[in-house]
Order: sequence, then C-alpha cells, then structure tokens
Amino acid sequence: MPALDFFYDFASTYSYIAAMRIAPLAERAGVALRWRPFLLGPIFKAQGWDTSPFNLYPAKGRYMVRDCERQCADLGLAFRLPEAFPASSLLASRVALVALEEGWGEDVSRAVYRAEFAEGRNIGDPEVIADVVRALGHDAKAALARAQSDGIKAKLRAETEEAQRLGIFGAPSFVAAGELFWGNDRLEQALDFAKRG
Amino acid sequence: MPALDFFYDFASTYSYIAAMRIAPLAERAGVALRWRPFLLGPIFKAQGWDTSPFNLYPAKGRYMVRDCERQCADLGLAFRLPEAFPASSLLASRVALVALEEGWGEDVSRAVYRAEFAEGRNIGDPEVIADVVRALGHDAKAALARAQSDGIKAKLRAETEEAQRLGIFGAPSFVAAGELFWGNDRLEQALDFAKRG
Repeated sequence: MPALDFFYDFASTYSYIAAMRIAPLAERAGVALRWRPFLLGPIFKAQGWDTSPFNLYPAKGRYMVRDCERQCADLGLAFRLPEAFPASSLLASRVALVALEEGWGEDVSRAVYRAEFAEGRNIGDPEVIADVVRALGHDAKAALARAQSDGIKAKLRAETEEAQRLGIFGAPSFVAAGELFWGNDRLEQALDFAKRG
Repeated sequence: MPALDFFYDFASTYSYIAAMRIAPLAERAGVALRWRPFLLGPIFKAQGWDTSPFNLYPAKGRYMVRDCERQCADLGLAFRLPEAFPASSLLASRVALVALEEGWGEDVSRAVYRAEFAEGRNIGDPEVIADVVRALGHDAKAALARAQSDGIKAKLRAETEEAQRLGIFGAPSFVAAGELFWGNDRLEQALDFAKRG
C-alpha cells in the first residue's frame, strides 16, 4: 500500500486545515498515512526567527487569518485564531506521540486542533490538553505523565531533526518516496504522487 | 463586467506561472483583468529583506524550484531558474507599463516571463528586454526610452505603493473588491470571488 508521511505542528493554522481533511482523502486514494507531529520552533530558530512568520510579518499574518477564514468557510470548518498565537505546541506534540503509539493519535490530533483553532483555546496550557484527552475517554493524568518521559521527549526531538533533514521548513508538509510537498494546498498532489509511486 | 487586479513582479517564479494561465481562465469566467506589474523589492526591504526569501531561506528556495518544476510540468510549461535570481525587474516592469498603455502589455509580460523562466535569460539586462520587445514586432529603442521617462517611473512607484497599501506582501497577488488573494494557487478562487462580486 502506498504511504504518505504527514508532518504537522500544532501551532500551525494550515496544519489544522490539513489535519481535518486528510483522513478521508487518503482513504479514498488508498494511501496509508503516517501522522508525524513535530516542532517548527527549532527549524524557525535555525533560520533566525524567534516566533511565527505571521507575527514577524504583520501583512502576511493578517492575510493568513483572512485566507484561513475563507478556506475554512469553504470546508465547513470553524476558524478562530487563539489569543495565544503561536501556541506552545510542545506538550500537545508529546501527548500526540503517546497517543499515536496507543492507537488514538489521529483522534487526539484532530481534537487538539479543534480546541485551538475552532474554539480558540490555548493548547499550551496543560489543563486544556488534559480536557481534550479526557473528552476522548482517555486517562489524562497517565497520558500527560507519559508525555514527559525521556523516551517521548527524545522521540519528538528525533522527529523534528528528521523533518529538518528532509528539507522541511514549514507545516503542514507531506513526504512520499523522498518527495516533499509543502502546504495544505499540496495535499491532493502529494496523495496523487504517493499513489502513483 | 466583474474585474480582477493581477499584481505581478517579473522576478517572481509563481507570478510567471500565474501570468501564463490567467488570461483564458479570466475569459472563461467573464472577468476583466487589470495587469499590474509592481516591485516586490521595496516591500521586502520594508520588512527587512534585501533579497528574495528563496535566497534568504535556502530550504525554502530548494523546495520552490522543485515545486515550480512540478507545477510547470503539470501545465506543460518549461521551467528554468536563471542564474541571476532574483533578477532586477525594474526595467521589465517599466517597459510593461509602457506596453500596457499602448495595448501590448499582456504580450510583453508573457514574453518577458518566457525569456526569464523558460529560457533562463537575465531580464535585468536591457539587451534581453530589447530582444523581447523586438521579437513582438515593436520598436525596442522607443519603448526603452519611454520606459525611462519620469511619468513611467512615477507610475511604477505609485503602483508599488498601491500594492503595499492593499496589504500585498508577495506575488502574484489578486485583488477583487478589496479582497486580497495571494499566490498562483489562489487564482481560481480569486476569479470565482470576482465573478460572484
């Protein structure tokens, strides 16, 4: 079965849109997805940015909000930029890695994004992440504790380094057979590439 | 008739792709186009960049080339990044403004882009621009002389200031009824918006 790696950062608005629509598209295309949360922060830092480009470049930031509103309206998704933007995506990413190992990673990824960009909550707050985990019927205390284990911390670091090695510089990014596609706009093309091999 | 403003910079790879496909799409949509060359340089400079972001951020630059190769292959367009990248687009923009006033602006815009991104020529070289103008059957000496007139210089400055005022931060950009769309990817959406009014 052809496969596609889906690299996403929980602070990324366009990753939210991709995360909400990728699963049915991949299923229809017969492409197996690997959900791979990673951190853009260290990659941005390496190129001299200490925050989101949407904050560094206000005209681009204003446009991004309007563009996401339009994209989400077309898709029937809510969109609300949280006051805390970009949110710290560290804890959410670690919890997602725990959940991916336990089989509920896709669900928690979508639920985190919904809390953040549909409800405008601050996913950098551990209480918000705990709420999200509990609402899915999982043990929040156990998941958050495992998220702080050395193994999970090392895994997130390794995933972020792998993203950088693959040439990733933004999110969402998709990789099939070494070919990189950047942006929610490129999802269909990436699935098509993965399918044709 | 609904209208769409098409803002393009001759140094911009994605503006090339948009310029090569916009006319038949606009005609089919029943949307009148206003071709508006402008300079990204002063806008980039205002946000602290002294060259293209594709040079400032090499991972992004490498990806852009691969992405343009793929997009152009799908559209049956040649793509070749010139050695001089980003080219100085000052003279080409002024000549395009002259030609737009004289009714051959679309043709020269496409021809400049073809010389640059299909043939890899340096459009910052006045000889290359003169060649392009001559190949279209126009008087190159007269066009280049008019391009250096105070009126044309002032017009390009005004267009660039207008782009900035409209919130434009990249190219290509499309504006319909005050609504901004950025990127070759958004061309269809912009035309659709213009059409629905």
